[in-house]
Amino acid sequence: MEVFLSLIERKRDGGVLSDAEWKRFVGAVVAGQLETYQITAFLMAILFRGLDVSERRSLTLAMRDSGEMLEFACDPGRPVVDKHSTGGVGDKVSLPLAPLLAALGFRVPMISGRGLGITGGTLDKLSAIPGFTTALPRPRILELVETLGVAMAGQTERMVPADRILYALRDASGSVPSLDLITASILSKKLAEGLDALVLDVKFGSAAFMPTQARGRDLARALVSIATECGVRTRAVLTDMNTPLGLTAGNWLEVKESEACLRGGGPADLRELVIDLAAHVLVQTAREASLERARHTATTCLDGGAAHGKWRELISAQGGRLDDFERLLAADSLAPVVLEVRSDRSGFVTRCDARVVGEVVRDLGGGRHTRDSVVDVRVGIDRLAKPGTRVRAGDLLGRIHAESTDAAEEAARRFREAIDVGDSQPDPGPLIHDVMLAGD
Amino acid sequence: MEVFLSLIERKRDGGVLSDAEWKRFVGAVVAGQLETYQITAFLMAILFRGLDVSERRSLTLAMRDSGEMLEFACDPGRPVVDKHSTGGVGDKVSLPLAPLLAALGFRVPMISGRGLGITGGTLDKLSAIPGFTTALPRPRILELVETLGVAMAGQTERMVPADRILYALRDASGSVPSLDLITASILSKKLAEGLDALVLDVKFGSAAFMPTQARGRDLARALVSIATECGVRTRAVLTDMNTPLGLTAGNWLEVKESEACLRGGGPADLRELVIDLAAHVLVQTAREASLERARHTATTCLDGGAAHGKWRELISAQGGRLDDFERLLAADSLAPVVLEVRSDRSGFVTRCDARVVGEVVRDLGGGRHTRDSVVDVRVGIDRLAKPGTRVRAGDLLGRIHAESTDAAEEAARRFREAIDVGDSQPDPGPLIHDVMLAGD
Repeated sequence: MEVFLSLIERKRDGGVLSDAEWKRFVGAVVAGQLETYQITAFLMAILFRGLDVSERRSLTLAMRDSGEMLEFACDPGRPVVDKHSTGGVGDKVSLPLAPLLAALGFRVPMISGRGLGITGGTLDKLSAIPGFTTALPRPRILELVETLGVAMAGQTERMVPADRILYALRDASGSVPSLDLITASILSKKLAEGLDALVLDVKFGSAAFMPTQARGRDLARALVSIATECGVRTRAVLTDMNTPLGLTAGNWLEVKESEACLRGGGPADLRELVIDLAAHVLVQTAREASLERARHTATTCLDGGAAHGKWRELISAQGGRLDDFERLLAADSLAPVVLEVRSDRSGFVTRCDARVVGEVVRDLGGGRHTRDSVVDVRVGIDRLAKPGTRVRAGDLLGRIHAESTDAAEEAARRFREAIDVGDSQPDPGPLIHDVMLAGD
Repeated sequence: MEVFLSLIERKRDGGVLSDAEWKRFVGAVVAGQLETYQITAFLMAILFRGLDVSERRSLTLAMRDSGEMLEFACDPGRPVVDKHSTGGVGDKVSLPLAPLLAALGFRVPMISGRGLGITGGTLDKLSAIPGFTTALPRPRILELVETLGVAMAGQTERMVPADRILYALRDASGSVPSLDLITASILSKKLAEGLDALVLDVKFGSAAFMPTQARGRDLARALVSIATECGVRTRAVLTDMNTPLGLTAGNWLEVKESEACLRGGGPADLRELVIDLAAHVLVQTAREASLERARHTATTCLDGGAAHGKWRELISAQGGRLDDFERLLAADSLAPVVLEVRSDRSGFVTRCDARVVGEVVRDLGGGRHTRDSVVDVRVGIDRLAKPGTRVRAGDLLGRIHAESTDAAEEAARRFREAIDVGDSQPDPGPLIHDVMLAGD
């Protein structure tokens, strides 16, 4: 790409690249025709200069088209839908939501990632289910989605190769925080699933990619507007990630909590978010006229056992051994050591810091420091005391599941810093702060 | 350099790096310890965020110290001085100035570069002198400067390696126009010469690196302030480069014009600038109390033949064959074809565009399109009609020296576009627009 330097210079000077130029750029990236030291300078120039709406759309679509896409038969009665979360601690929403959407009659090609740092990954959680495999070839993903209504898999090697290359370069050279590049990265992967509708869970707070609500809102707006520009009906909910979602963090413990949710139980915040996201998909696809009716439909489906049934079918279809799974569910813990952390005073929990909880779980072995880290799915924290909870001295604040006593004690020491207990009952505030529709 | 990513991120976010961090960065660049794709992203972040004064100083000094420096015996009576020009068309000032400064009793280790694009290079001009070599090893440079007072050479392989590496990466990835990086690049090379005083010729205009006087002024200020911070007495003159300097452009033709200057003749603008730059060095080093007296001293030295004598000694010392050189000087042209371009109307020359002249000379073979181009020293343009000159129909506007008739005719066609002839006599304006001292 002889002219790439002139594109770098144009973007550096605040210019706008054409659709054809973005296509050529992405094509040359994937073909290995560009020097990486030119690509990273270009990405940094993008971070500073930004992209206009037409460029965001062009880049996103060029990245989406850089590899193999999922393509589904046209079937207006069974829209192809998915959810994407920007990541958080205790965020196991995908596990109950995917089978719930399938039980509601949608086709759900849920392509997920692994966790990194304090952010958990759906693939890691699913790997805690005995026998379950997420390494599905493309034909098998298509088959499962058409027949069962749902597949939960990792990205295939041939999907969106441009994002893999560009993300690795951004990660190594400091251009990760570009809103334009984040948007293109997230959406190119989701749009490659061949979706009719997409719902986004954009998180803000101590353990989120976006620390403040304002920045979360910016990201949500950008994602909704570009996805809509790209022809997919999209909306976003803006949710609080200062506190972990649910009462557990750690791969197996989160599977267990998801199971409870799918049986109509589990913590209220998780249930609320799962039902709300499903309801938004129902409204987006015009299956329901109002959010209220849609919530009712989703709740009925969840509580009636249809979602749980779909979940069990999905586990079997993806190699999971249901009887082994049931046996593990019956155990109190899979970890060698369980340490209870108790309050030394009475009062109300005023803070349960998702970032600290995430760091503790990661350092117990439940998350990755680097891409090559091996995850221990057994470890984590459960029975979390969340803001607003009344505790007496000696009451449980949480339980550490660890590989050893030393690890558990170190984790407990740090976990205490995550929880504050005060005298007056706080208002924990809503979980869902806003809903962003196209045109907002 | 495990932490380089954190430095990129800090600069990206507008932070300031410490002196130790700049040293480590430059050290790691030269040791090949950094990925080039990280370096280019960092350079682009510098372009957008800029460096503060302390960072500019730290980077410049770290680059200066990245390789071998020239070191001279302490001899307060013979200060070590040099001139740097930001480059232009017809800029042969170094050729008369270096021997003039040596004749005035200074030590002048003049390390120069090759030309690129429309900008001529001192090394290319010198290569037109039969036998003259600029590839001198460091000990020979030191010896010539101590004994003769002057050496004119290319950078040795071991001098300022950080600049070579960083410049090549900037050139390929779009971060050339960073004022901070330009400053560090220029000054690290000059400061590696072990100078007591430095005078800078910062050009602005159509053929200059900085197109406007305002941007030329910014660069001049930055260079003077950082060089002064680095402990070298420095001043800059701001000169016009909308019109070529002197009446010739092209390597051999410029040598010939320099020879005329050294004999006390040559065009007025060249002579004015050579004398002025020498005068500034005399004042800077406290050899003269006023610029007026210094101009007088420099003029006397030039017209008395001392500078020309030094020039001849220099040519001999660097392998040049004086009798061959004299023979060439006696010839009207070294090029196979000389084509006269004449005015088709009467009036006054109102414009002689340095950029067009530079492009024509480059395309005649006198300049480089890429670093690997081979230069034909014989070609160029002389007897240029400059703004303010009265011409009648049929008078000469310039002569094209070319390799072939076709090349000459193509050059003549384009050269006509460089010259405008109008009815009223224009005010060509001053050559030297301003002088920048430390603290300005």
